[in-house]
Amino acid sequence: SQNNGTVSCRALEVDKSSSSYSVGKKFQVTDVIEAQQFDRDLLGAIFDVAREMEKIEKKSPGSQILKGYLMATLFYEPSTRTRLSFESAMRRLGGEVLTTENAREFSSAAKGETLEDTIRTVEGYSDIIVMRHFESGAAKRAAATAGIPVINAGDGPGQHPTQALLDVYTIEREIGKLDGIKVALVGDLANGRTVRSLAYLLARYNDVKIYFVSPDVVKMKNDIKDYLTSRNIQWEESADLMEVASKCDVVYQTRIQRERFGERIDLYEEARGKYIVDSRVLEVMQTHAVVMHPLPRLDEITVDVDGDSRAAYFRQAKNGLYIRMALLKLLLVGW
Amino acid sequence: SQNNGTVSCRALEVDKSSSSYSVGKKFQVTDVIEAQQFDRDLLGAIFDVAREMEKIEKKSPGSQILKGYLMATLFYEPSTRTRLSFESAMRRLGGEVLTTENAREFSSAAKGETLEDTIRTVEGYSDIIVMRHFESGAAKRAAATAGIPVINAGDGPGQHPTQALLDVYTIEREIGKLDGIKVALVGDLANGRTVRSLAYLLARYNDVKIYFVSPDVVKMKNDIKDYLTSRNIQWEESADLMEVASKCDVVYQTRIQRERFGERIDLYEEARGKYIVDSRVLEVMQTHAVVMHPLPRLDEITVDVDGDSRAAYFRQAKNGLYIRMALLKLLLVGW
Amino acid sequence: SQNNGTVSCRALEVDKSSSSYSVGKKFQVTDVIEAQQFDRDLLGAIFDVAREMEKIEKKSPGSQILKGYLMATLFYEPSTRTRLSFESAMRRLGGEVLTTENAREFSSAAKGETLEDTIRTVEGYSDIIVMRHFESGAAKRAAATAGIPVINAGDGPGQHPTQALLDVYTIEREIGKLDGIKVALVGDLANGRTVRSLAYLLARYNDVKIYFVSPDVVKMKNDIKDYLTSRNIQWEESADLMEVASKCDVVYQTRIQRERFGERIDLYEEARGKYIVDSRVLEVMQTHAVVMHPLPRLDEITVDVDGDSRAAYFRQAKNGLYIRMALLKLLLVGW
Repeated sequence: SQNNGTVSCRALEVDKSSSSYSVGKKFQVTDVIEAQQFDRDLLGAIFDVAREMEKIEKKSPGSQILKGYLMATLFYEPSTRTRLSFESAMRRLGGEVLTTENAREFSSAAKGETLEDTIRTVEGYSDIIVMRHFESGAAKRAAATAGIPVINAGDGPGQHPTQALLDVYTIEREIGKLDGIKVALVGDLANGRTVRSLAYLLARYNDVKIYFVSPDVVKMKNDIKDYLTSRNIQWEESADLMEVASKCDVVYQTRIQRERFGERIDLYEEARGKYIVDSRVLEVMQTHAVVMHPLPRLDEITVDVDGDSRAAYFRQAKNGLYIRMALLKLLLVGW
Repeated sequence: SQNNGTVSCRALEVDKSSSSYSVGKKFQVTDVIEAQQFDRDLLGAIFDVAREMEKIEKKSPGSQILKGYLMATLFYEPSTRTRLSFESAMRRLGGEVLTTENAREFSSAAKGETLEDTIRTVEGYSDIIVMRHFESGAAKRAAATAGIPVINAGDGPGQHPTQALLDVYTIEREIGKLDGIKVALVGDLANGRTVRSLAYLLARYNDVKIYFVSPDVVKMKNDIKDYLTSRNIQWEESADLMEVASKCDVVYQTRIQRERFGERIDLYEEARGKYIVDSRVLEVMQTHAVVMHPLPRLDEITVDVDGDSRAAYFRQAKNGLYIRMALLKLLLVGW
Repeated sequence: SQNNGTVSCRALEVDKSSSSYSVGKKFQVTDVIEAQQFDRDLLGAIFDVAREMEKIEKKSPGSQILKGYLMATLFYEPSTRTRLSFESAMRRLGGEVLTTENAREFSSAAKGETLEDTIRTVEGYSDIIVMRHFESGAAKRAAATAGIPVINAGDGPGQHPTQALLDVYTIEREIGKLDGIKVALVGDLANGRTVRSLAYLLARYNDVKIYFVSPDVVKMKNDIKDYLTSRNIQWEESADLMEVASKCDVVYQTRIQRERFGERIDLYEEARGKYIVDSRVLEVMQTHAVVMHPLPRLDEITVDVDGDSRAAYFRQAKNGLYIRMALLKLLLVGW
C-alpha cells in the first residue's frame, strides 16, 4: 500500500490464494474420463501438484496423504504397465489397493451382470475406481453410475486420459514450455489413441506446430486435422522424418500395431520399417529436443538411442507415476 | 443398592459384561465353515459387532484394529466379488492381504499337492486364510489342518456362510426384527446354496414364515422343507408371486443358473422368465418391505426397481463388508 | 585391560563391531542372482539376520523396517508359493507390494517388448524387483539393467538362490551346525535346480559328506560331482536309501518331475516309486536327523512321516519367510 507499483501485484496474489486451485479447494473434476475435460489452466494446476509429488520421499508426511483410502483397479483387459503405475501411485501416498486383473468374470456371458451393477457393488468396497475396459464409452457409463470418483485407464479405442496428461507434463518438464513448441507425431497415427489425445491437448497452447509423419496406411484422420485447423493450430504432413526431426522440440514415436493389419503382413512389415528413430535421427535433432514414446516399443526406436540424454521415454513412463499420484490426491482430498 | 427397582437391572448389566460375548473374551468360533455353526445368540452378538464396523471411519482408531495381521485369500475358483469384499474388509481394519486368485496351480494335476500340504505352507505366511474351493467339504478339511483360522468363502455346492450371515443381518437392518417375519424365497431354490443356508438360519427365529416361489424344475428340496417342519417353521409353496409379495417383509430373488440346465435351453428360458420382480411387484409390496438378491442379477429384477428405496440388494452387498469385518476382527482379536 | 587374558577378546569384539557385516554397513550384494554369490562368512551373517527376523512380532518396531518401500513381484511364470513367501516377507517388515502374476503380457509376442525395457519401466514404480522367469539368465540381465535391487525367484532351469539359502539355513537351525554334516540328496538329481544349488553351497563348509540316491535316469550330473571333488568335498552314489538314511544328518528328498519324461510314463512310474521316505526310513534315521523337501511333494514322502518331529519340511518352508525377510532388509536398508 506504500508503493503503488505493488498494489496490483498483491491483488494478484490475493486472487491466486483464493483461486479455485488453491489448497483446500475441491477438485473441479469428479471423474477423469477424457482428455478434453482439461483446459490449459487446469492442466497447469495439475502439473504443479505433480511436481510436488516428485518431491515426496518415503518418510515425508506427504507419503501418508491417502492413508485409509482404498483404490479398486477394475481391469476388464490386462494392462500390467498401467495398473502397476496406478497402484504404485496410490501406495506412494499411503493408500491401499484392491486389484482385479480379470474383471471380465464379473460380467461374463454366463453370468451377464451389467457394468452398472458391478460398479454399484465395487463402490461399496472402495473410495475410488480405476477402470480399464475394452469398450469405448465404458468409463463414462461407470462414472454416471458411481457415487465415488472413476478414472478411465483406457477404454478400448476410446480414451486414455492419464496417458495424454503425462505426455503433456513430460513435454513441459523436458522442454520447459508448451507455448510455441514444435512436435512431430510419428508412426501409427490412425489407430493410436495416444497421439490423438495428445493432439487435442496440444491445441490448448499457443503457437504450437504439429508434424504428422506416418506411413500412408496409418495416416492421422481428418477429425483431428479439422479440429486443429478450427483451433488455429498449424499442422503439416511430411514424409521426411529427418527434416522434421531437425526442426522439432519433440519427436513422439509410436508403435505400428500388427493387429491392425489382419492378414496383410506385407503391409505391416512395410509400414513398421518406414520411420525408425535411430542414431542418425538423433544426429540431426537439436540438443534441447527429446524423443518420446508411450511404450512398449519394438524396434521403432533402436536401442542405441537409449543412452542419449534426449531419450525421454523412460522418464516419461516415470512421469506417469507423478501425474497419477496428483490425480488420486486431487480426486480424493482436493487441492 | 439404594433403590430396589434398580437392583435387578444392575444384576443384568453385570451379567452382560461378564457374558461370553463381552469385550476381551475369545470368539467362540475358531473357523467359519458353515451357517449351522451360528445360533441365535451368537448371530445377535456378531450383528452388534457388524454395526460397530459400520461406524469405523478412515481416521478412527478402529481402522487399525488388525494392523500387522495378514490375511491370505486362497481362491481355487475365481469370485472377484467375494474376494474384493473380504480384502476390503481386512484393509478397512488396517490389515494386509496376500492374494491368490489361481490357487489351483498349487494342486495342479501335474504337481498334485494335497490341499492339506498347501494349507500347511500358507499358514506359515499368514494369520488367517479365506478360502474358496470348487469341492464341497474343502473348507472343513482346510480348517482341520490349519493352526490359524479358516473362513469358508464358498466351497462348491456346499456352504457360503458369510453370505448367509450378511443376508440375515440385512433383514434385521432393513425390517428391524427377525422374529415374526415373512420371507419369500424366489427363483432357483434347488441349486442356490444361498437360499438353502438362509432357510437354515431363519429357522433360528420365532414365528417366521417362508414362502417358496419357484419354477417347477428348480423347486426347494425336501431336506430343507423337512428341517423347517422339524423346527416348527411355517412354510408354503406358491405359484403366485404377486399374492406372496403383498404379504411378505422380504422378497428374496435369485438368479436361475443356465449352467444347471445343460442342453435344455428351452427349459432354462421358460424357468428364468417365470418370476420377475418388476414395478408391478413393487406396487403390491408393503411400504416397509424390501427386495433382496445375492447378486449378480440378470433380468430377474428389472432395472426400474433399482430406484425404489425398497430395493435393498446393493445395501445388502455393502453389508457383506461389515459382516466380514466383524468376523475377521472376532477371529483374530476376539470380542 | 586389567586382565591380559581379555585383551585379545576385546580386540576381537572391536574387530567384529567394525566388520563389514555390522549394523549400518551396506550389504555387499546389490542383487541376489545365484547361490554362488554367497561365501561362508556372508551366509553366516545373513543367517544371523534371519534369526532376528524370526523374533519380529506384529507390534515390535522391527515390523516397520521397510515402511514406505515398494516391492514389485514380476512373475513371468506362476509360482504362488514363492510369490506368497516374498510378499509375506515384505509385509511382515511393513513394506508394500505390487503384484504381477502374468508378466508375460509385458513381453508378449504380439507386443514384443524386451525384458530390459520392462525392467526400466518397473524400476520407476518400485524400490526392489523380485523376478521369476522361464529363461535361464533372465535375472542376470534384469539386474544388469535395473538401478534398483533384483532378486532372482527362479529363472527356468537356472538358479533359485533364495531356496538354496533357506535350505542351508534350515540345516543349521535343525542340526545346529554345517561343518561335518552328512547329507543325502534323494530323488531327481538331474533336473532339480534345488539339489544342485544346495550341493554348491554345502561345498562352502568343512568335512561335509554328500550321498546321491537317485534312479538311474535322473542321476546327479558330472559338473556338480567334479565341482565337489575340486573342493575336496566327499561324495558317493548309493542305491541303498536305508543304509544312507541311517548315517545321515539330513535326508533331502525331492519330487520326480513327470514333465521330464515326455511320453515315457513307464520310466516315470518306475523312477518315482523307487526311493520313498516312509516310516521305515524314519526308523533307521538317527534321533537328531531330519527329513527335508523343497515342496510341493506327491507321495515321495508318505503322510505318516508328517507327524514325526524329524519331518522338517514345513518348518523349512517357513524358514523361507525369514531368509526372504533378511534379504529384503539387507538389500533395502543394509546390515
